[in-house]
Amino acid sequence: MDDLVDCLLGDQSPRVWSLLVTIFGDLARDDTAQLSGQLINRLTDRMRLKPEAVRVALHRLRKDGWIESERAGRLSLYRLTPSGRTQSRAASPLIYARTAPTDMAWLVLSNRADTPNGRASEIVWFLPHAGLTTRPPQDPDRLHLPIPADTPVPDWIKQQVCDDKLLRMARDFEARLVRLDDLCGPRPCFGPIETAVLRVLLVHGWRRIALKTPSLPDHVFPDDWRGGHCRSRVATLLERLPRPQLDELLADIAA
Amino acid sequence: MDDLVDCLLGDQSPRVWSLLVTIFGDLARDDTAQLSGQLINRLTDRMRLKPEAVRVALHRLRKDGWIESERAGRLSLYRLTPSGRTQSRAASPLIYARTAPTDMAWLVLSNRADTPNGRASEIVWFLPHAGLTTRPPQDPDRLHLPIPADTPVPDWIKQQVCDDKLLRMARDFEARLVRLDDLCGPRPCFGPIETAVLRVLLVHGWRRIALKTPSLPDHVFPDDWRGGHCRSRVATLLERLPRPQLDELLADIAA
Repeated sequence: MDDLVDCLLGDQSPRVWSLLVTIFGDLARDDTAQLSGQLINRLTDRMRLKPEAVRVALHRLRKDGWIESERAGRLSLYRLTPSGRTQSRAASPLIYARTAPTDMAWLVLSNRADTPNGRASEIVWFLPHAGLTTRPPQDPDRLHLPIPADTPVPDWIKQQVCDDKLLRMARDFEARLVRLDDLCGPRPCFGPIETAVLRVLLVHGWRRIALKTPSLPDHVFPDDWRGGHCRSRVATLLERLPRPQLDELLADIAA
Repeated sequence: MDDLVDCLLGDQSPRVWSLLVTIFGDLARDDTAQLSGQLINRLTDRMRLKPEAVRVALHRLRKDGWIESERAGRLSLYRLTPSGRTQSRAASPLIYARTAPTDMAWLVLSNRADTPNGRASEIVWFLPHAGLTTRPPQDPDRLHLPIPADTPVPDWIKQQVCDDKLLRMARDFEARLVRLDDLCGPRPCFGPIETAVLRVLLVHGWRRIALKTPSLPDHVFPDDWRGGHCRSRVATLLERLPRPQLDELLADIAA
C-alpha cells in the first residue's frame, strides 16, 4: 500500500485544498452524502497530509462556499454546498470519461482577431483568426467546418492544442499508471479506506491533467500526446477500485 | 444585326489584339485550321474595328508567338502557333463550361503568411493564413478541409472571392445577355459570317469575366454574384449560334 501511495503521489505533495475537493467530489457527490471529520482525517492521514493542514484547508473550503458543516454530537459532518456540488458534477464527465469527450472537432474561422484563449473560451485559437472547437456552429459571421477523424492535421496546429508542459504531465502520469497497474495486480484486494485513498489519489492525479486538457478529440492532439491513454487507464483502474459506500468506510474506521 | 452587335459591344470598343485571340480561339483552334486575311477583315469589319488597327494587332500577335502566317498566292493565311493553340485550349474549359468548374471547394490553412494572390496561384487567400482552392490536398504542412455546397459561408469570406468590379461586370454582362436573348429570338437565322461575329463577341465579352473569375464553385461567391447565370446563358446562346465551319465562312464571303 505504501508503494501504491508513493507511486500516486509522485515526488510532489498534493495541494491539500485541491485534494479535499477531489475527496468530496469522488466520495460525497450525492445530494445527501456527508463525510465526518474523523473519516476525512483517516483518509488524509493515509495520503500523508498533516492534520493541521487539513484543518486549515477545511476552513478555507467552508469560507469559499465549497462545503458546509454541522455538528452532530461529538462529530463534525461536512458536505458539499449546492454550488460546490454543481461544480463537482460539471467537472466529472471530463475526469471519469473512458473516451474523448467527442469524436468531432470543428474548425472556426473568424473575421475578428480578438480571440484570446482562456478558461471560459470553448475555442482553442491556433491562429489569430482560426480555432478548434467541439461546439456545433452558431455564429453566422464565422465559417465552421467539421474536421473528421481521418483528416491529416499538420503538426503546427496540433502543437498549439496542448503545450509541452501538458504533454510531459500526461507522459509522466501514464508511466505512474503503468506502475500502479503492476502493483495493484489483476484483482486488487483492499479494504474500503484503502480503496478510497487509492481512488482519490488516482482521480486527483488525473484531474490535474484532465481539467487542463482542451475538450477536443484525440486526433487533433500531437502524436506524442498520452492523455488519451491515461484516460482509458484511469477508467479501467477505477473499475477495479470501485467506490466504497460511506457506511463501508465508517465500518472500516470503527473496525 | 446592328442592334445585336451594339448590345454585345456595349459602350467600350474591344481591344483588337485580345479580340483577335478570341477569333482564333473560337473559330480556328483545330490543328489545321487557318483563317485568311480576307475572312479576318470581314469579321472584324462587322465588329467595327478599323482595318489599320487589325493589321497592327496581327503583326503584334505574330511577334508575340501567338500566330504564324504564310502566303498562298494572293492570300495571307493565319493560324495559331502550337503555343498559342495550347494557351487557347487551356482557357477554353473556363470559357465554354455550362456549369461551375467544380462543386467542391477546399479550405486551406497555412502556417506561413507569405501567400499572395496572383494569376499563378490556385488558392484565393482571404486571410493571411486561410484560402480557398479546388485542388485536392497535397502539402502536409497545410490543413485542408472540404467545404460542401450546403456549408454557410460568411459574407466577409465570399466578398474576398471576387471584388466589386467583377461583380459589376457580371451584373452588366448578364443584362446584355438578357437583351441579346430577346433580340435573337428562339430560332436565330443568321448567315455563317453573322453567326461567327455574334459568337466571337459573345465569347469575348464572357472571356473577360470568366478568366478573371477564381476557379471556385458558385456557393463560395457573394450572393449577388451573377457569373453563374452568365455562364449558363452564354452556353445556351452558343448552342443557338453553332460554330460555322470554315468552308461555310469562305462560301459566305464569296457570295
